[in-house]
Amino acid sequence: MSGVIVTDPPKADAKDVEALAGYGVATVHEAMGRTGLLGPHLRPIQQGVRVAGTAVTVLSWPGDNLMIHAAVEQCGEGDLLVVTTTSPSTDGMFGELFATALKQRGVRGLVIDAGIRDTAELRDMDFPAWSAAVSAQGTVKATGGSVNVPVVIGGQVIRPGDVILADDDGVVVVPRQKAREAAEASRKREDKEAATRAAFLQGQLGLDRYGLREKLAQLGVTYQPYEEYAADGDRS
Amino acid sequence: MSGVIVTDPPKADAKDVEALAGYGVATVHEAMGRTGLLGPHLRPIQQGVRVAGTAVTVLSWPGDNLMIHAAVEQCGEGDLLVVTTTSPSTDGMFGELFATALKQRGVRGLVIDAGIRDTAELRDMDFPAWSAAVSAQGTVKATGGSVNVPVVIGGQVIRPGDVILADDDGVVVVPRQKAREAAEASRKREDKEAATRAAFLQGQLGLDRYGLREKLAQLGVTYQPYEEYAADGDRS
Amino acid sequence: MSGVIVTDPPKADAKDVEALAGYGVATVHEAMGRTGLLGPHLRPIQQGVRVAGTAVTVLSWPGDNLMIHAAVEQCGEGDLLVVTTTSPSTDGMFGELFATALKQRGVRGLVIDAGIRDTAELRDMDFPAWSAAVSAQGTVKATGGSVNVPVVIGGQVIRPGDVILADDDGVVVVPRQKAREAAEASRKREDKEAATRAAFLQGQLGLDRYGLREKLAQLGVTYQPYEEYAADGDRS
Amino acid sequence: MSGVIVTDPPKADAKDVEALAGYGVATVHEAMGRTGLLGPHLRPIQQGVRVAGTAVTVLSWPGDNLMIHAAVEQCGEGDLLVVTTTSPSTDGMFGELFATALKQRGVRGLVIDAGIRDTAELRDMDFPAWSAAVSAQGTVKATGGSVNVPVVIGGQVIRPGDVILADDDGVVVVPRQKAREAAEASRKREDKEAATRAAFLQGQLGLDRYGLREKLAQLGVTYQPYEEYAADGDRS
Amino acid sequence: MSGVIVTDPPKADAKDVEALAGYGVATVHEAMGRTGLLGPHLRPIQQGVRVAGTAVTVLSWPGDNLMIHAAVEQCGEGDLLVVTTTSPSTDGMFGELFATALKQRGVRGLVIDAGIRDTAELRDMDFPAWSAAVSAQGTVKATGGSVNVPVVIGGQVIRPGDVILADDDGVVVVPRQKAREAAEASRKREDKEAATRAAFLQGQLGLDRYGLREKLAQLGVTYQPYEEYAADGDRS
Amino acid sequence: MSGVIVTDPPKADAKDVEALAGYGVATVHEAMGRTGLLGPHLRPIQQGVRVAGTAVTVLSWPGDNLMIHAAVEQCGEGDLLVVTTTSPSTDGMFGELFATALKQRGVRGLVIDAGIRDTAELRDMDFPAWSAAVSAQGTVKATGGSVNVPVVIGGQVIRPGDVILADDDGVVVVPRQKAREAAEASRKREDKEAATRAAFLQGQLGLDRYGLREKLAQLGVTYQPYEEYAADGDRS
Repeated sequence: MSGVIVTDPPKADAKDVEALAGYGVATVHEAMGRTGLLGPHLRPIQQGVRVAGTAVTVLSWPGDNLMIHAAVEQCGEGDLLVVTTTSPSTDGMFGELFATALKQRGVRGLVIDAGIRDTAELRDMDFPAWSAAVSAQGTVKATGGSVNVPVVIGGQVIRPGDVILADDDGVVVVPRQKAREAAEASRKREDKEAATRAAFLQGQLGLDRYGLREKLAQLGVTYQPYEEYAADGDRS
Repeated sequence: MSGVIVTDPPKADAKDVEALAGYGVATVHEAMGRTGLLGPHLRPIQQGVRVAGTAVTVLSWPGDNLMIHAAVEQCGEGDLLVVTTTSPSTDGMFGELFATALKQRGVRGLVIDAGIRDTAELRDMDFPAWSAAVSAQGTVKATGGSVNVPVVIGGQVIRPGDVILADDDGVVVVPRQKAREAAEASRKREDKEAATRAAFLQGQLGLDRYGLREKLAQLGVTYQPYEEYAADGDRS
Repeated sequence: MSGVIVTDPPKADAKDVEALAGYGVATVHEAMGRTGLLGPHLRPIQQGVRVAGTAVTVLSWPGDNLMIHAAVEQCGEGDLLVVTTTSPSTDGMFGELFATALKQRGVRGLVIDAGIRDTAELRDMDFPAWSAAVSAQGTVKATGGSVNVPVVIGGQVIRPGDVILADDDGVVVVPRQKAREAAEASRKREDKEAATRAAFLQGQLGLDRYGLREKLAQLGVTYQPYEEYAADGDRS
Repeated sequence: MSGVIVTDPPKADAKDVEALAGYGVATVHEAMGRTGLLGPHLRPIQQGVRVAGTAVTVLSWPGDNLMIHAAVEQCGEGDLLVVTTTSPSTDGMFGELFATALKQRGVRGLVIDAGIRDTAELRDMDFPAWSAAVSAQGTVKATGGSVNVPVVIGGQVIRPGDVILADDDGVVVVPRQKAREAAEASRKREDKEAATRAAFLQGQLGLDRYGLREKLAQLGVTYQPYEEYAADGDRS
Repeated sequence: MSGVIVTDPPKADAKDVEALAGYGVATVHEAMGRTGLLGPHLRPIQQGVRVAGTAVTVLSWPGDNLMIHAAVEQCGEGDLLVVTTTSPSTDGMFGELFATALKQRGVRGLVIDAGIRDTAELRDMDFPAWSAAVSAQGTVKATGGSVNVPVVIGGQVIRPGDVILADDDGVVVVPRQKAREAAEASRKREDKEAATRAAFLQGQLGLDRYGLREKLAQLGVTYQPYEEYAADGDRS
Repeated sequence: MSGVIVTDPPKADAKDVEALAGYGVATVHEAMGRTGLLGPHLRPIQQGVRVAGTAVTVLSWPGDNLMIHAAVEQCGEGDLLVVTTTSPSTDGMFGELFATALKQRGVRGLVIDAGIRDTAELRDMDFPAWSAAVSAQGTVKATGGSVNVPVVIGGQVIRPGDVILADDDGVVVVPRQKAREAAEASRKREDKEAATRAAFLQGQLGLDRYGLREKLAQLGVTYQPYEEYAADGDRS
């Protein structure tokens, strides 16, 4: 597979990235109309860490980490490396040496739709990572691929320079051009959630707050006391 | 899908629930003749927590959390919310706002055969949860379902008012009418295990304690020194 | 299924086992030419633990732990129990009582290609374990199997007396006769990695250190500025 | 595991079973309000066969077919054998000899949430089967279980005497007491579908037939010509 | 979820579609540099059918087929319907009535990254389909989505008007603007394969035809007679 | 990964291979004491074909079919190609051109623990295959591997020259040195099965034929009339 290494793509504004880092993945995903989530198969190797950065993307052959080496050079301050493979793989393509090189360049973390290794070392050096698998399986450097081209993970297109936000709930991509709008929408959503939280703490029900009682009635959902329900001869 | 919200089902006796909370999931499952386990796909989002409560059950459409809102109103002190969907889903149907509302009502935790989100926040607020997935994916409120009807998770039927016990090993359901009997049997099993533990610590073997040497012989299992075995020309 | 319990197999030299315990799973796997890894489906129940021991192997019927009882007697100081089943199973075949008996005999841990239970207790007693599932599901003692015969996990053959090394990245098997050689190769690899780490910390790139720029060129991978790439009318 | 073999359970009326056999699985599932489906993991070993019968249920230990032998005696004319295991298993618990014995007794087929073997022979002898796996893996006869107790497959409870209907789309269970009602509802649904089919053949749209244009508008779904959509600068 | 129904997108040239229909999925995927394949999870419900058409795309909520109704109106002669959901689902969203309506409009088939039902009927009416699951599970019409927006299946972006080619090996997408080029490249590849086939039939080896003997040597792959290899004391 | 191509390994006697070809996979697996099965994940691409041959084994890097080219030269009359990868892969490593070359050399079929493509063409040319996936995804020729070394599929070790037997139920390996013994045992088992079949056709029960009534009693399995069971207040 021949490929291309795209240099100097435009990146989301650092201020917008910082703003987005103030919100959780679920909040930003909701604020963008429930889009951008990379799927539940990507899990963090650490707990309690939230990070945001601009994507440097890598498309690799399975079992081959040559293109990650090429990508390191394209990475700089505030970036977050995003790696996927041309077909499914659990091999441990990324470990502590890569993390050392990336950290030295100011890279904030890794999202990889394949395997990762040296997980204890990565935790020790505070290099956060989200991966589809943990595996010590090593890889070769034999086949070409691409850097900074659009890639797809979990049904979402990620372009170089897009914002990647990751926490314990998973990973969300915010398109570069929508970073400001998404940050703004997230702030609004969080304000709304704060009000809802306060109301819930005082005992209000979602049924009432969101006007759902009517909806239940329209949908034909009925209330029935247990005795009546049980007497109906329902076989349950 | 129309549905029904069953109100005021009978619940297991609080004293029996407390008694069961004193034992691990594995112990209670064994004490009930190896029944009631909800399967290894349900994993805790926290570590080292054991909780027991009476089930409030929810049957939802995939990608839709309307019925969880309806269920909140049916929940009270000592309950534990149990949610499943009519077809498989990993969507994050439950998060911090629901947990806030439930905690305020005295609910002890969540078991959900689907996705959960805001996991860091749930851990921070000590609201324990067991789920089939972690996902920030949001849901709609568009389709009816049922509350407090019998539901099935991992091949086990759960009825409202049944006891749910969960810990790091998974989740077990104890039918309401068998709660006392199960607590009693668990106590006996634990006593027996304590005696076995003591014996093992003094070097006794399970082979002898359980009379298994005879069984091995009956089954035709034989002992063979390594040299003899290797010389047999076995290709291993 | 009749079977055989092989007694007193030769074991890897304790000194070699200790030497291997000084390296991570990924390092040893690489040092052996990327072989021996038991696959990403085996996950630790604890974090931050590395252990090495000599394998006592068990081949069991699914849902049946009779042969683990037989294996306990064959275990001693410095061993590590390795269990698999004749067909896939997630049942919790191993728990705290077994761990108690094994720890009393100096056994260092467990690797099981099936389920495990009492995970909180195992963590409390510092008995490390790697398993394919966590499940409280209990088992019977009804069908024969074998102890200390070659078994296969994740495509790797494990013979009694082989070295098993496990950490957060997974589990690797080192054939008994290659233990010394593997330890030696691991030491060399670690020296090389230390040099690379130092170079990376000073900003050297893998592209240069490993001579990969040439390889990329040979493979037809080209560099292209973003503006040019975007202007190409590529639909991305 | 001790167990119980329940004899002479009541069965659905043969006339209702025949009536249900006239409809497809999808039709009956819809007619019952979208309930009763045993899930997409059960696949037929043949193509183009539809069969209905009254359930004789078996709960077996994984890797053990003892209870199927016990069940054969409980089977008779018009029955359909339904087998599940206490924990997940792909072992080939059922083959041509069982099919020979069952066919001789008038049994109509098999639904098994585990493995099956001798599939070529079963097709040759016109004994239809739906299974979770095809596997030649053999089993033992060592552990007890139950016959004609309620079992759960794919989240559905199946009781002895219930109607099982299976075709290329999967398997549905109709509770014994609802067999007549389900047949009646299926007939009505099929009539309705025939009318819809005729309308569709004449070019009517579901949008109009089901009044969905309004619903789309209410949900905020809008129509946009491609040029306008593309010009919006949407990054797609 | 609000959404948009995009009308009258540009489509690949019919002549190019016909040209592509003359090649297999594997050939076209190779001719495009090993890109465009939708992944092995999409399987045909029939055997021996190859079809090509222009994509009409649908993005639906899981468990909801409202947007397929909206899509029917956008479909015409030579199209092929492509459906995916916002989160994973196996529900049977598509059946015989939809196929009737689509066939009446000249639509050539269906690719759906979810479930399908009425598979026997679809085969009978020669409406080919590729799906991620077969399931009779019914769906609602409650939540909005989009038609003719870019969708992602198996890591590939599909835009309305792109060419979809499907056969027993799976499904490949050819971007609209590359249809001619892909057809041309496929023809060349097929010519080359014909020459290779002829050479292979006369006994030539791929090792020689592709010059791989040298490559093996460069990679350090060596030849060894069995006796020598076995005598090496390799434990295999 | 450097590797080795082992030439001229000893092969199972052709007469024994022919003898084994007369029995089904399930029969041979049983006759060998329920061993040798390669697991239910390997499925045939055709129906109703049984084939036996001597294994030529290939160990490949994922996404790379270089070593299959090397293996072709090692294949001859009566062989069956067995391919696996160093880590899991679904890529379509094998297609019609390989089949053409192999058929020309008298090779009987393929077993591959990865993907296959050109399935329609393979069926047309009567080249039978069993694979873990069907996928058109193409591969490179960049990384070394081995031919005719022991490989592992589904937990079974396969050595060059071993007998591979495959049919609709799956694939079984018979070690070279045990081929005669396995054929003999299969014949005996088939004779026994014929007698059982005859007995079953005359109405004898397995319960009686295998003396299982006693076993059920020993295991504590009891018989209970439905009315009594239902009256027990069991919640089912």
